[in-house]
Amino acid sequence: MRRKQGLLIVCDGLGDRPIGRLNGDTPLEHASTPNLDRLVSQGMVGNVYPYKPGVRVGTDVGHLLILGYDTETYYYGRGPIEAASAGIDLKPGDVAFRGNFATVDGDRRIIDRRAGRITEGTAELARALNGMTLEHGVIVLAKELTSHRLAVVFRGAGLSASVKDTDPGATSEGNPWQDPSPLDATPEAARTAVLVREFSIKASNILSNHPVNLERKKRGSLPANFILLRGPGMMGPLPKLDERFPLKPACVAGDKTILGITRMAGFDTFTDPRFTGEADTWLQGKLEKALQLLHTDYDWVLVHVKAPDLAGHDHKPEGKVEIIERLDEAMGFLLKEIDLSRCYVGFTADHSTPCEVGDHSGDPVPTCIAGADVRKDGINRTGERFFRSGSLQNLSARDIFMIQMDLMGRTEKYGA
Amino acid sequence: MRRKQGLLIVCDGLGDRPIGRLNGDTPLEHASTPNLDRLVSQGMVGNVYPYKPGVRVGTDVGHLLILGYDTETYYYGRGPIEAASAGIDLKPGDVAFRGNFATVDGDRRIIDRRAGRITEGTAELARALNGMTLEHGVIVLAKELTSHRLAVVFRGAGLSASVKDTDPGATSEGNPWQDPSPLDATPEAARTAVLVREFSIKASNILSNHPVNLERKKRGSLPANFILLRGPGMMGPLPKLDERFPLKPACVAGDKTILGITRMAGFDTFTDPRFTGEADTWLQGKLEKALQLLHTDYDWVLVHVKAPDLAGHDHKPEGKVEIIERLDEAMGFLLKEIDLSRCYVGFTADHSTPCEVGDHSGDPVPTCIAGADVRKDGINRTGERFFRSGSLQNLSARDIFMIQMDLMGRTEKYGA
Repeated sequence: MRRKQGLLIVCDGLGDRPIGRLNGDTPLEHASTPNLDRLVSQGMVGNVYPYKPGVRVGTDVGHLLILGYDTETYYYGRGPIEAASAGIDLKPGDVAFRGNFATVDGDRRIIDRRAGRITEGTAELARALNGMTLEHGVIVLAKELTSHRLAVVFRGAGLSASVKDTDPGATSEGNPWQDPSPLDATPEAARTAVLVREFSIKASNILSNHPVNLERKKRGSLPANFILLRGPGMMGPLPKLDERFPLKPACVAGDKTILGITRMAGFDTFTDPRFTGEADTWLQGKLEKALQLLHTDYDWVLVHVKAPDLAGHDHKPEGKVEIIERLDEAMGFLLKEIDLSRCYVGFTADHSTPCEVGDHSGDPVPTCIAGADVRKDGINRTGERFFRSGSLQNLSARDIFMIQMDLMGRTEKYGA
Repeated sequence: MRRKQGLLIVCDGLGDRPIGRLNGDTPLEHASTPNLDRLVSQGMVGNVYPYKPGVRVGTDVGHLLILGYDTETYYYGRGPIEAASAGIDLKPGDVAFRGNFATVDGDRRIIDRRAGRITEGTAELARALNGMTLEHGVIVLAKELTSHRLAVVFRGAGLSASVKDTDPGATSEGNPWQDPSPLDATPEAARTAVLVREFSIKASNILSNHPVNLERKKRGSLPANFILLRGPGMMGPLPKLDERFPLKPACVAGDKTILGITRMAGFDTFTDPRFTGEADTWLQGKLEKALQLLHTDYDWVLVHVKAPDLAGHDHKPEGKVEIIERLDEAMGFLLKEIDLSRCYVGFTADHSTPCEVGDHSGDPVPTCIAGADVRKDGINRTGERFFRSGSLQNLSARDIFMIQMDLMGRTEKYGA
């Protein structure tokens, strides 16, 4: 089987809905995208369901699906992904949580779920918690992530991930943190709930008196005096991508969660301080890095761009248009450098984040796979409505993954 | 997640095939539908498979699928649905049948499966059977339904729904009613078959001498002297819609089966003597009622229209065109009153009933979901052939349900 390379750009939250302020266009339809249009004219397109019609997915599940995983089997919760993002190597039996540095008052009430969006000093604070010993000899591992986030892992015997989040969720400021409770009747769940309570109180005591927080108080900033936990999970087996298909994959990203997911899946990951995971990220730098990796021995390179999702969550259609136009500019550079007869180039999204909704939706995501020998759909404009008549319409993210593996010549024949 | 409302009009048996007499149009294509066309131009459209391509479904299964139920798990046969339609509250272990008042002769031969389409006196006749005691202390519950139909329930220990229908089916006039026999080797099935025989004979004796039938004979009408049973089922667990999604649903219908199904699914149901379940039903009244419910605290309102299916069964394409045009007129009223930026409006069907076939077929059903922020397909004519290029093409009824839940902001995120 002849083999080729592939480059896939994942535009987080790219899909959208018609927006009155944009004359009824979606941001992708509205943006001026001469270079994406050129790519589209060389490819197959469609609006692709991340999982199933009407099912909205998180970033974690959305990316596992883009990587072709059956998430019914291989999604173990957000906690293990955050641990991977933090570089913590999970052992069987570990329970991993996604954590927030938060501010609570003396009555357990949450003042701020993000401790004033703390960005500095979190490494020292996490270090102060790391290695904490709980009942039954359970050890806590803690490591800071981007801004107010951290990964927390319980390591020891007889643990369970069936415990309730202490984080009461988004619009909960003013409410108390939730009492840890087991979610099933096993002794492991009961024991873990008690350990979560012990951790929460011990962590609060340590953090309250930590110099970073004393300094924050002096400055009038909210202290990071509590850890809200959510998304507990126990990691299970996850076959690496190169165990599933004969290829060497790489990921170029700024966002730590994406770096964690792709690392779990066996990608070599590449980042740079200028890949900020924000609107000011260095797009051309990401594509330059991808080209460089394709010129060495990587076969499939995934480039992640976070900014469209942020604009969606922030209800900013104009911001989404702007980041798309900046991506288009960088694509102009890429298309000059890449040979579509040797490397397929595509783009997709993990989910839609419509600006008017401000959250992930189940709408299908605009997707393109271009290359010299793909069947062209004859479409030369970029956007949800233009893609509707494309050949990828209504397929799912796992279909798109398999189509890429097939085009690149990496699949086994079914039958003989 | 931002929440909105929804209104779904289910046009029973709407889908059809090209008809020579209509110049090769389907009835929906042929009908003049300026208001539906206007709705369509504001929406996504497609021809949707009720279950899977080529599988034709009954009204009961078709509606469970429209409500998003996995019918492999949650369809318990037609009997329990008819019991719900009759207002009989089933207990675990009950076996429910769909029954017909029928006319048989002295040799068990069926003269008329519908007892001359009897419409009057059925309440008294059912009352005469209700409370009958059979062997093993089994009690019979009986309650009349529309025209010649009734619900029959056996209540007692050790029963089974694995028994053959006594009703030999549609084109069986002149044949004898079928001997009750068990469909599996369990003692429960054997016992229930014996009880069905006992019921059939006792019921026939009671009915033959009932004043309603003596009066019918005097008038030269066929007596309702037998109960043909079919569709036995034992009700199992069925999660209510508001246990599955955070919304308050209502159904507006004339047809008792639909009222039964939606009531089983946890809908509040609304009917009116002028909602006849026939071609003369009061369509604007149904839509007025729906609007009123949406102005109180109902989130999702389903309006059922039976007449297209009847026209299909009766091989009357012109009749189907006429009911569609009457529906279009009522839609004109609705579209003046409703705000598509707050409430999604859609239409679909439970199955196709092609007029030339005269029965349900597996053809996909024309479907539309309109709203201010849905991605418009740019189609502005109503009909199977016009919908083919729409974004909902080839999805299934359960997909359409999930897409509505997603648009209305009622779904949980899969992953984080």
